[in-house]
Amino acid sequence: MVVKAYGTQAATLPLEPMDITRRTVGAHDVQIEILFCGICHSDLHQARSEWAGTLYPCVPGHEIVGRVAEVGAHVTAHKPGDLVGVGCIVDSCRHCAECDEGLENYCDGMVGTYNGQTADPPGHTLGGYSQQVVVHEHYVLKITHPEEQLAAVAPLLCAGITTWSPLRHWGAGPGRKVGIVGIGGLGHMGIKLARALGAHVVAFTTSEGKREDALKLGADEVVVSRDAEAMGAHAQSFDLILNTVAAPHDLDAFLTLLKRDGTMTLVGAPAAPHPSPNVFNFIMRRRSLAGSMIGGIPETQEMLDFCAEHGITADIEMIRAEEIETAYERMLKGDVKYRFVMDIATM
Amino acid sequence: MVVKAYGTQAATLPLEPMDITRRTVGAHDVQIEILFCGICHSDLHQARSEWAGTLYPCVPGHEIVGRVAEVGAHVTAHKPGDLVGVGCIVDSCRHCAECDEGLENYCDGMVGTYNGQTADPPGHTLGGYSQQVVVHEHYVLKITHPEEQLAAVAPLLCAGITTWSPLRHWGAGPGRKVGIVGIGGLGHMGIKLARALGAHVVAFTTSEGKREDALKLGADEVVVSRDAEAMGAHAQSFDLILNTVAAPHDLDAFLTLLKRDGTMTLVGAPAAPHPSPNVFNFIMRRRSLAGSMIGGIPETQEMLDFCAEHGITADIEMIRAEEIETAYERMLKGDVKYRFVMDIATM
Repeated sequence: MVVKAYGTQAATLPLEPMDITRRTVGAHDVQIEILFCGICHSDLHQARSEWAGTLYPCVPGHEIVGRVAEVGAHVTAHKPGDLVGVGCIVDSCRHCAECDEGLENYCDGMVGTYNGQTADPPGHTLGGYSQQVVVHEHYVLKITHPEEQLAAVAPLLCAGITTWSPLRHWGAGPGRKVGIVGIGGLGHMGIKLARALGAHVVAFTTSEGKREDALKLGADEVVVSRDAEAMGAHAQSFDLILNTVAAPHDLDAFLTLLKRDGTMTLVGAPAAPHPSPNVFNFIMRRRSLAGSMIGGIPETQEMLDFCAEHGITADIEMIRAEEIETAYERMLKGDVKYRFVMDIATM
Repeated sequence: MVVKAYGTQAATLPLEPMDITRRTVGAHDVQIEILFCGICHSDLHQARSEWAGTLYPCVPGHEIVGRVAEVGAHVTAHKPGDLVGVGCIVDSCRHCAECDEGLENYCDGMVGTYNGQTADPPGHTLGGYSQQVVVHEHYVLKITHPEEQLAAVAPLLCAGITTWSPLRHWGAGPGRKVGIVGIGGLGHMGIKLARALGAHVVAFTTSEGKREDALKLGADEVVVSRDAEAMGAHAQSFDLILNTVAAPHDLDAFLTLLKRDGTMTLVGAPAAPHPSPNVFNFIMRRRSLAGSMIGGIPETQEMLDFCAEHGITADIEMIRAEEIETAYERMLKGDVKYRFVMDIATM
């Protein structure tokens, strides 16, 4: 099946319309008519080969929502017409310890939704900036939000699960004080989810101008991280800090805000290293610095169900397919509240 | 009470005999005739003011073992003649969350055995290189090892608990693969304790010459960390790595050996920072880098009891009090297997 897509043939070329081929629906496959696809910073990194190893043509997009068009003979969990989503993962080995525990995101054989190894042409996966996708049923998520919210659900498939997984793993909930560093695509979801989970949420931003927005998103408090006095008032008080900032910055300023046994979890990886954190800040209060990458399939479903139940979606700005390069430029400047979503019908 | 001690009046002067005053035994105090005192690298740092804030005169020593000489009116847990120990902590607030949980080591009001704030003359605490010490009963540990092992028990009070606490906290035990980086005063205890706890123990050393010794100490395997191939064979296999090396080094070489959800815990703090670890190594496998500082009083007693039961002591080299400067010089060169202990009777 040949479908329309937006992609690029080289790191230095802009994204443009192209035709791509999707595989025939296998016994365990679900064919999805894509309706919307969120625009993640990773898409841009991949398209422009800012990470090593981009294969071309490159079609980005791993915040996919749409409607089931067809299912394979053995598929029972999904049926034509269902609203479904696909996130960053379209395959994994399905027999390792990670897969057995529902943490396919940490499987050595995890196949990303784009640029991953596949037998399908052209030999690597092509993402959600396209009209259709065919995915093994295991990696297809059910969406129970009202259909009119569908576009705003798309970013939950990456930004949502990337913040949900560490919030749940490190126990964000009632009685816990949780910091969210950075109020962007990831951070705005982190604030919403941590608040809905019952934690006391403090948003950290470098920009005083984001204070009101952060409060509207659900933060109980907002701290401008350049304000040493405001930072000091929170010393040794956090159970968990979820740090969504990928730019290199001073980790010690946040590590010192953790209480004993607290953890700061990084979900962004900077191109240049952060300044090396002070070992005393770990030792003196048995603190931890950790990382987390997306989330597994069962916890992605859990997050989607939780969001549907709590009326949570992403704050989005819709774009037409041909606006993708402009969207990338604005995303690079942080000029988006808080996630672009491509309307695939415009393709 | 005036007693003999070994200490120094300035960072640039050698340790020498001096007389110091110990407070009168209070209602909750235990007066201890010190028999042996272990020599910790921290002693040297403090004496030479390599850490900020050394107060003089400085009498180091926080691996204290001896015999109870006298107890205060309200002391019930100890009686004259008992073999007891005192580690790095001689006081804390006794009412904070940390103290309530038996983690006095993380109390903001923790008073170190030397250089800590006290009402006793000269206004700061003086350590175990001395004939007697008076300590609040809460910080006095019972020793049930045979008396002839007493000198070799001394290092358990710092080197032992500093490794025991993180091994227990992060669950070293049967079915768990534990790495111990560095085979010195701390590392040799880490190997013994992790092995006795039932973990599979891999010792890491930069020196091929330490292989046999590490195996004798109880390591199941020994890896020379300069051997990239040997390191690679252990990729993604460790639940916990206890890193005892205080010199700056490449943490990534060890972080990549952790399996998903594994933790590397630092118990040494370098004077210059480690090279900044690669954030991808945290994110890709949800790994953690943590720190741990000594241990609380209840877990110190637990460790001493465990060691008595399992016949575990430190490997020591006994010195006379006047040999302390030579011992420091040899310690700086790593020329000790694995802990010097001062025979206080030679004072």
